[in-house]
Amino acid sequence: MRITDIREATASIRSDIRNAYVDFSQMTVSVVAVESDVTRHGRPVTGYGFCSNGRYAQGGILRERLIPRLRAAEPGDLLDVEGGNFDPRKIRNVMLANEKPGGHGDRAVAAGALDMAVWDLVAKLGEQPLWRLLSERYNGGAHDDQVMVYPGGGYYYPGKGLDRLQDEMRGYRDQGYKVVKMKIGAVPLDEDLPRIEAVTALLGGGGDLAVDANGRFDLATALAYGRAMSPFGLFWFEEPGDPLDYALNAELAAQYPGALATGENLFSLQDARNLIRHGGMRPDRDWIQVDPALSYGLTEYLDIIEMAETMGWSRRRFIPHGGHQLALGLAAGLQLGGSESYPGVFQPFGGFADDTVIEDGLARPGEHIGIGMEAKATMFAEIQRLVGG
Amino acid sequence: MRITDIREATASIRSDIRNAYVDFSQMTVSVVAVESDVTRHGRPVTGYGFCSNGRYAQGGILRERLIPRLRAAEPGDLLDVEGGNFDPRKIRNVMLANEKPGGHGDRAVAAGALDMAVWDLVAKLGEQPLWRLLSERYNGGAHDDQVMVYPGGGYYYPGKGLDRLQDEMRGYRDQGYKVVKMKIGAVPLDEDLPRIEAVTALLGGGGDLAVDANGRFDLATALAYGRAMSPFGLFWFEEPGDPLDYALNAELAAQYPGALATGENLFSLQDARNLIRHGGMRPDRDWIQVDPALSYGLTEYLDIIEMAETMGWSRRRFIPHGGHQLALGLAAGLQLGGSESYPGVFQPFGGFADDTVIEDGLARPGEHIGIGMEAKATMFAEIQRLVGG
Repeated sequence: MRITDIREATASIRSDIRNAYVDFSQMTVSVVAVESDVTRHGRPVTGYGFCSNGRYAQGGILRERLIPRLRAAEPGDLLDVEGGNFDPRKIRNVMLANEKPGGHGDRAVAAGALDMAVWDLVAKLGEQPLWRLLSERYNGGAHDDQVMVYPGGGYYYPGKGLDRLQDEMRGYRDQGYKVVKMKIGAVPLDEDLPRIEAVTALLGGGGDLAVDANGRFDLATALAYGRAMSPFGLFWFEEPGDPLDYALNAELAAQYPGALATGENLFSLQDARNLIRHGGMRPDRDWIQVDPALSYGLTEYLDIIEMAETMGWSRRRFIPHGGHQLALGLAAGLQLGGSESYPGVFQPFGGFADDTVIEDGLARPGEHIGIGMEAKATMFAEIQRLVGG
Repeated sequence: MRITDIREATASIRSDIRNAYVDFSQMTVSVVAVESDVTRHGRPVTGYGFCSNGRYAQGGILRERLIPRLRAAEPGDLLDVEGGNFDPRKIRNVMLANEKPGGHGDRAVAAGALDMAVWDLVAKLGEQPLWRLLSERYNGGAHDDQVMVYPGGGYYYPGKGLDRLQDEMRGYRDQGYKVVKMKIGAVPLDEDLPRIEAVTALLGGGGDLAVDANGRFDLATALAYGRAMSPFGLFWFEEPGDPLDYALNAELAAQYPGALATGENLFSLQDARNLIRHGGMRPDRDWIQVDPALSYGLTEYLDIIEMAETMGWSRRRFIPHGGHQLALGLAAGLQLGGSESYPGVFQPFGGFADDTVIEDGLARPGEHIGIGMEAKATMFAEIQRLVGG
């Protein structure tokens, strides 16, 4: 058994949305295909992956470093001990050989795309949905039939008023979502508060509303928002300050009684561990949002969960960023707290399989073999156009 | 005044050396030229930059994100208020627009190469050595005529024994160096100790020997090395653990009485601030080695120094990694503690101008206009071959 080809391409996921930090008019992702010499139905079994949104495609790193290392490897060095399937951890160690420690940024994003394709391939060769393979290998066979999902929405658009914001949130409710999320921090607090009030009025309270500052605030602003938002009893207050400003997060956690959520811009076990060590995060209420498709992949994510559990955290406090099928599958198979969802943005890569039904804010992972990308028609057509298969 | 062209290329700096973490057989750097419409001697004034060693070329990020943003900018938005020169900070903000916070890795390396070229151009347009421009703008006109430099050497080579290690260190002393550095951690402690003993025997003591573990050790190993090395009174013990494992560093600092040095794999103000906040570093003896040519450039480095000073650190505790002319120039102009030097490795990009004399472990920055790359013949020939000019 061997890898016969690895192809990568850049896909646009441009849109007019913006959060408190970036606009997405130039946003791209890397798409990867890992093709094996195993054939089924007359075609090679191929795994597909892509990096999550927000950090751009990583074709340079994939083409110049990660893919050549895999191509140069002895095929047997990439297989599990029985030789019956590929070993994602061995593949990870090969593709990241001779990379220095620290500096977990774009490299982690590139590896995340490639690692996703490897896991898709491994599950396909095992003829299982990825979530079930994860359940059996890493969760004693247990899994969740339904996963809490929430739409990452409420972006700022040019000319978007309170009515359109309410319409968007009403639309999510009509689609079956319960918890919804909106962006804050791109305008001053006195302009954001009416936006929050408009959504909580629609929802009948703040308990199902998460707000996301995308790392924009300094400590004084984060505290001011915290004081102003406390009465709403929000579902969470996400990424208040710079993702690496653990001291800011700890100070806010000491003063803000509600839940905090952060981690989508932490791309390694080391960074996530620093958040737990130094960020003042409270295991009884806060949420960790590391995204496996930005942070070296599912292989690293397994290590991160293990690290967190040894530090007294439940994996139920993990809700990955990204709104992709990988996150839904690992949330089901590993019994995490949930998964982000992108029903409207970052198309065609945002969102789950076309037949995924959302009810009462819960999604079923489905029985599609592998990650299930073939079951999201517009996305899979784009993947086929870009990397064949 | 405008930028008329930005060119980038990948250069090999391959060698057979290895440290405790990586081998350098595939190592590359990005080389950048930023050309202006100002002509001198009939040719356009052009700034040159390259990223520091260890993290590979970053052509993908340069070509796909950073350079297109500069090309799309209004020329006036890149100039200082008088319009008489380019403003490196404005250029930095343009090239990093729509980049999310956190994830300081390859992107910081790409920006470091481009930022170096911008500062070279700015100093050339000002018809000054960069160190003098920095002295005037950011150091009240003060500077150091001589800078402490040490060779980053003592790598593991295939078949290298104690004799060759001593020969290498003797060679550095013959070249005028005083403090020398060697790698540790690629072999067990009981094999490293004879290496350390051989070099301290040659030097007549450990006070001028720095050792570098390149982030390899867990806490127990770092403490064991610390206990074993304490009697030598070493110049410093560098990067004992993972660069982001601040807790390990703090625990070692609490037990190891000698100086620690780290920071070459911290690529942002936020990461450097976390080292100071959480890493237990002691302002009276430890050293911070952030490399501007890996961490968004000199512009970010100025912010890092300012941050450290507000936290009670002297800039004299900063000795940048990288062994390039930029580091020598900023050490002189900003009066840092010194600069690494690469007399033998990472050629042709390692090392200083050809006419730089090392005496008693001190180097003079020289009077070359800009960073002085034209005065390092083999390197400048390679730069011209790759990016013209």
